[in-house]
Amino acid sequence: MLHVSDLSIQRGYGVFDFLRAVKDVPLFMEDHLERFKASAAGMHLPLDKSVDELGKIVKELLRIAELPEAGIRLMLTGGYSSNSYSFSTPNLIITCFLIKAATGADFEKGLKIITYEHQRELPHIKSINYQMAVWLQPMIAEKQVDDVLYHKNNIITECPRSNLFIVTKDNKLVTPAHNILKGITRKNVLQLASTIMEVEERDISLTELLDAAEIFLTSTTKKILPVLNVDGNAIGNARPGPVTRNLYGKFLELERRSLTEL
Amino acid sequence: MLHVSDLSIQRGYGVFDFLRAVKDVPLFMEDHLERFKASAAGMHLPLDKSVDELGKIVKELLRIAELPEAGIRLMLTGGYSSNSYSFSTPNLIITCFLIKAATGADFEKGLKIITYEHQRELPHIKSINYQMAVWLQPMIAEKQVDDVLYHKNNIITECPRSNLFIVTKDNKLVTPAHNILKGITRKNVLQLASTIMEVEERDISLTELLDAAEIFLTSTTKKILPVLNVDGNAIGNARPGPVTRNLYGKFLELERRSLTEL
Repeated sequence: MLHVSDLSIQRGYGVFDFLRAVKDVPLFMEDHLERFKASAAGMHLPLDKSVDELGKIVKELLRIAELPEAGIRLMLTGGYSSNSYSFSTPNLIITCFLIKAATGADFEKGLKIITYEHQRELPHIKSINYQMAVWLQPMIAEKQVDDVLYHKNNIITECPRSNLFIVTKDNKLVTPAHNILKGITRKNVLQLASTIMEVEERDISLTELLDAAEIFLTSTTKKILPVLNVDGNAIGNARPGPVTRNLYGKFLELERRSLTEL
Repeated sequence: MLHVSDLSIQRGYGVFDFLRAVKDVPLFMEDHLERFKASAAGMHLPLDKSVDELGKIVKELLRIAELPEAGIRLMLTGGYSSNSYSFSTPNLIITCFLIKAATGADFEKGLKIITYEHQRELPHIKSINYQMAVWLQPMIAEKQVDDVLYHKNNIITECPRSNLFIVTKDNKLVTPAHNILKGITRKNVLQLASTIMEVEERDISLTELLDAAEIFLTSTTKKILPVLNVDGNAIGNARPGPVTRNLYGKFLELERRSLTEL
């Protein structure tokens, strides 16, 4: 519980990170904890624990929780403010709970998305500001799609909780470079892909998006999920494409290696 | 206290309003409660109390609190979300606390402000998203100014917690019309001014701002405060101007009438 004077409640001010664990093994933990630390610094929130200390707490939580598949959420808020506005000592909250990440069946089903003009504030920081994403949920439900993709001045950026990649018709993997939150799964996919194909981090226009051979999203819980429809337009042959499937296989393999090497 | 699963803490999602009372008499309460209701509706948050019911709670809180000058904050959050993302039943929180609104001495001292390029998301809704405002506080402190004024594409909008007015050199009162939260004090000042001078609600450029004869801010706690310096440039003769002073007097008179007529 947090007192209502906390700046997260008063002013929507805080940062977080989210990682996944299988049984008691956290995945890509150091990347997540380093990003959490960077988010805190970027938001002027002092973090009084080191990445090592945070890692120990996460592992201890996982050991106690005994879950088959767990999500761990680290939050750092603006703290209990005496005047509802000024910074105070941040509150650190770490929670651990049962989750169900995307499955092979989710991969085969794929996603339908719509586009929406919006640019997140301070996009490189994983802040708790998802006002627009939550606000858009009734529209997403009404249009019977799975998610929304933000764009601004004709350039696409990201979905509220995932990064987007396209496979071009000349077989390059391309993902936006600017005004986004750089995901940990995004980083892993870029590394895996770079061994088998040409990879580019650069601006993608809405036109290039719709002309892509394949599109997919990446996130900690989505892993890799094909996007089969954008704004009512089928992408490729409206089924998961060969490059997406290949990268998905490589990502699952990386995940298995990460789980056993510890 | 709120459980950390609340969408305000998880995703910075909620609305609020803030009103002021002298002893047990709330000022401009109906305007504030109507705006709170509109903010809730705009954010897809069902409010299960009527304006009348909220008014009774506010008055009861004031009666119990016995404060010489009180702030009342009404908050409605996205509620306890099972998945940290979807809407749930909103949590309504009403708090009452001692405040000290701006005084005559604050009026004489005036304010220094700086400008910053930013446009608030969903500006017409009084949401809890003050991420940018809180984030800018270290810069405001470093530059030894009192507040920040947002602008976008050369057009000014508002300060994080107040509206801005200019008095032009040909003695018109002008205030931004678009992409702002319409304050209750702003509304009162527009009404008071319309009986004595020409009033315009329209776009104001940064150039016109610096060329103003007088500038002032309005808010529930600021009432009317002169802006004497913008980005290091003195405004007028760097002292509270005659129009601002006249309107300030009229506003204090309105406040006195509101307190005694109930």
